[in-house]
Amino acid sequence: MNPAFKTIRDGGVTSAQGFLAAGVGAGIKSGKHEKDMAMLVSTVPAQVAATFTTNPIKAAPVKLSMKHTRNGAVRGVIINSGNANACTGVVGIQNACEMSEQAAKEIDCKPNEMLVCSTGRIGVPLPMPKIRRGIKKSARQLMAQNGSEAAKAIMTTDTIRKEVAIRMKIDGCMVTIGGMAKGAGMIHPNMATMLCFITTDARIAKRALRSCVSEAVEHSFNRISVDGDTSTNDTVMVFANGLAGNNELKSYHPQYQLFQQGINTVMRKLARMIVQDGEGTSRVIDVTVEGAARHADAKAAAVAVARSSLVKCAFYGADPNWGRIMSAVGQSGAKVREELVEIHYDGVLAVANGTASKTPKARLRKVARKSKFTITINLHLGKSSYSMLTSDLTEEYVRFNADE
Amino acid sequence: MNPAFKTIRDGGVTSAQGFLAAGVGAGIKSGKHEKDMAMLVSTVPAQVAATFTTNPIKAAPVKLSMKHTRNGAVRGVIINSGNANACTGVVGIQNACEMSEQAAKEIDCKPNEMLVCSTGRIGVPLPMPKIRRGIKKSARQLMAQNGSEAAKAIMTTDTIRKEVAIRMKIDGCMVTIGGMAKGAGMIHPNMATMLCFITTDARIAKRALRSCVSEAVEHSFNRISVDGDTSTNDTVMVFANGLAGNNELKSYHPQYQLFQQGINTVMRKLARMIVQDGEGTSRVIDVTVEGAARHADAKAAAVAVARSSLVKCAFYGADPNWGRIMSAVGQSGAKVREELVEIHYDGVLAVANGTASKTPKARLRKVARKSKFTITINLHLGKSSYSMLTSDLTEEYVRFNADE
Repeated sequence: MNPAFKTIRDGGVTSAQGFLAAGVGAGIKSGKHEKDMAMLVSTVPAQVAATFTTNPIKAAPVKLSMKHTRNGAVRGVIINSGNANACTGVVGIQNACEMSEQAAKEIDCKPNEMLVCSTGRIGVPLPMPKIRRGIKKSARQLMAQNGSEAAKAIMTTDTIRKEVAIRMKIDGCMVTIGGMAKGAGMIHPNMATMLCFITTDARIAKRALRSCVSEAVEHSFNRISVDGDTSTNDTVMVFANGLAGNNELKSYHPQYQLFQQGINTVMRKLARMIVQDGEGTSRVIDVTVEGAARHADAKAAAVAVARSSLVKCAFYGADPNWGRIMSAVGQSGAKVREELVEIHYDGVLAVANGTASKTPKARLRKVARKSKFTITINLHLGKSSYSMLTSDLTEEYVRFNADE
Repeated sequence: MNPAFKTIRDGGVTSAQGFLAAGVGAGIKSGKHEKDMAMLVSTVPAQVAATFTTNPIKAAPVKLSMKHTRNGAVRGVIINSGNANACTGVVGIQNACEMSEQAAKEIDCKPNEMLVCSTGRIGVPLPMPKIRRGIKKSARQLMAQNGSEAAKAIMTTDTIRKEVAIRMKIDGCMVTIGGMAKGAGMIHPNMATMLCFITTDARIAKRALRSCVSEAVEHSFNRISVDGDTSTNDTVMVFANGLAGNNELKSYHPQYQLFQQGINTVMRKLARMIVQDGEGTSRVIDVTVEGAARHADAKAAAVAVARSSLVKCAFYGADPNWGRIMSAVGQSGAKVREELVEIHYDGVLAVANGTASKTPKARLRKVARKSKFTITINLHLGKSSYSMLTSDLTEEYVRFNADE
């Protein structure tokens, strides 16, 4: 991490000035006392930038939030877990609208200043009486101390809550960036979605914020793979309310790049937590492809390795099975010359000139047994590189996803 | 099956006239008495057409056989299991050449009339002394009765041998098409490859045979998915020796289409056997996408559903989880309008207008518990359709592929 950043202990979405949160139980999930609704609000209007799932089958709240983020500043977001409000037709859209309207009324803003997120079961209409009570309850509990409660409320089958916050100085002002997220894997049947909410008190132009978020997402959430499936609800939202008092950040601001790195850092930390807490995950592997002829080749090869079921099963089995990695690189469509490929496990040479190195298999096995290691694949065809963070594919993953 | 075809009981690669086979143990696999080398020979020169893995990282025998199939007629193929001779560098190529040379010498033909296939562990040099003895032994045991022995010898982690043969009349002559195959999934670490060998005594022009084989592969082996990974060694070879005595089949021959259907039938039967015997498979599912705007959309959507880990886990759990199917169709890149999508499980309506149908969940669950059922997805955007055969993703699959 950049030494200019300071991690805030127990920090999260309410670490930045002027952000309040709540996490309550509304009875949407079957567990009676489980939290399943969260609200996140800025005391003053905030710029917002968001990225949504690329899946054309989008949940109703995604469609609504896409519309609302096109406007000017917003005030916050209302979130429920336990039901994705996806594939729910016209009723789903009506329910998402009602959620934003009611939440807006509670905090006294316009409906289009309130965003909506849902995560959970697909294809079941929202239990609106419960949702209505939950929104009321959330609004009453909005506090700067409740960041962690919100982080708990957005969890579905995550086993730990995911929060982080860092601080830096911009124009001599203390600027805070905090965030919370929920898991990427689709764990229970009909459960979906990666959600991430970032808050900052930095003052930043809307356009700069958008570019900043695209860049950070590309270097974090777009580089993790748990099961290769994208969901109907995936959403990353970043709110910036300007209360830190710095000069407005634009691309030519001398510390714009520092802020960009800050957003990158927060997103990468949350992305790593998501992979570590992926369903059934027992190992986390950094896959890097180097020496590719073009960026697209590096990316295709890294993604293919990170997504291959066979490679991921070998990771689970602690088997330094580089043959499967070679095969995955081959089928990725990346330009590759077999006789040039070199593969390292945590810096230990496994493949040289496209064939087995002289490294004793025991040494490679030792690396493969670690809970965290790197795979570096050098194609020796150029200068492009790309990295992906992936997990192993375990029996527990299959059990999770087969159990209803 | 076309009523013009008759299935030959216990038929296989030696059902057609003039084909001899052998399957022997050469000690390549660790099990001492396991068969691991096979030879398949036509008593007279045969036309050959073959398709090979599209993976640019190809095993040495694949490279050699690609060269040899470009020539005129050939006499046969020598096959070993237990070692893929892939990612083995220059030595691998030399060894594959030596295999074809020795096998050719044994049956008294030119080296380039002998093809070579290997399947098994990647990255380990072939144990040539064992291979040499195995080739000798195979040549001595060549017989028309040994089709099943060859089918056994090409197995790796397949649990049953895969053979089929059918008969039909062409120009009043009895024409036979037989075949054998080994599994598609990569079961043990470093194990790879789908192999298929088809023999026929039909007389057919080389060009017609090639077009026939491409067409049949597209409708069979290209439409199955076990784990979404292609291997370094995948090969389909079809030998036609002309001994049936029919007029030479060319595209304008009145029974060319019948023969095409025959090849399709044999390949589809073998492809289905491969999916049924996929590692850990407990269910086989026919996925059909209909009503797509374009052929490419139908194909993309069917492939996405057939490959999705989440969909396959739901199949395993007997969960009629149509939300995951919707999501997979969405992320396939196919043109889709959510509100038009319709999904049936074995003809039972699960999704209408993109949302849950009124069918009681118990009825859908009953279908999902079957060991074999169909999923039909109608996009209601056009007239194109595409089908894929897939299996469920089970804990056993992960165990298989994690165990070294």
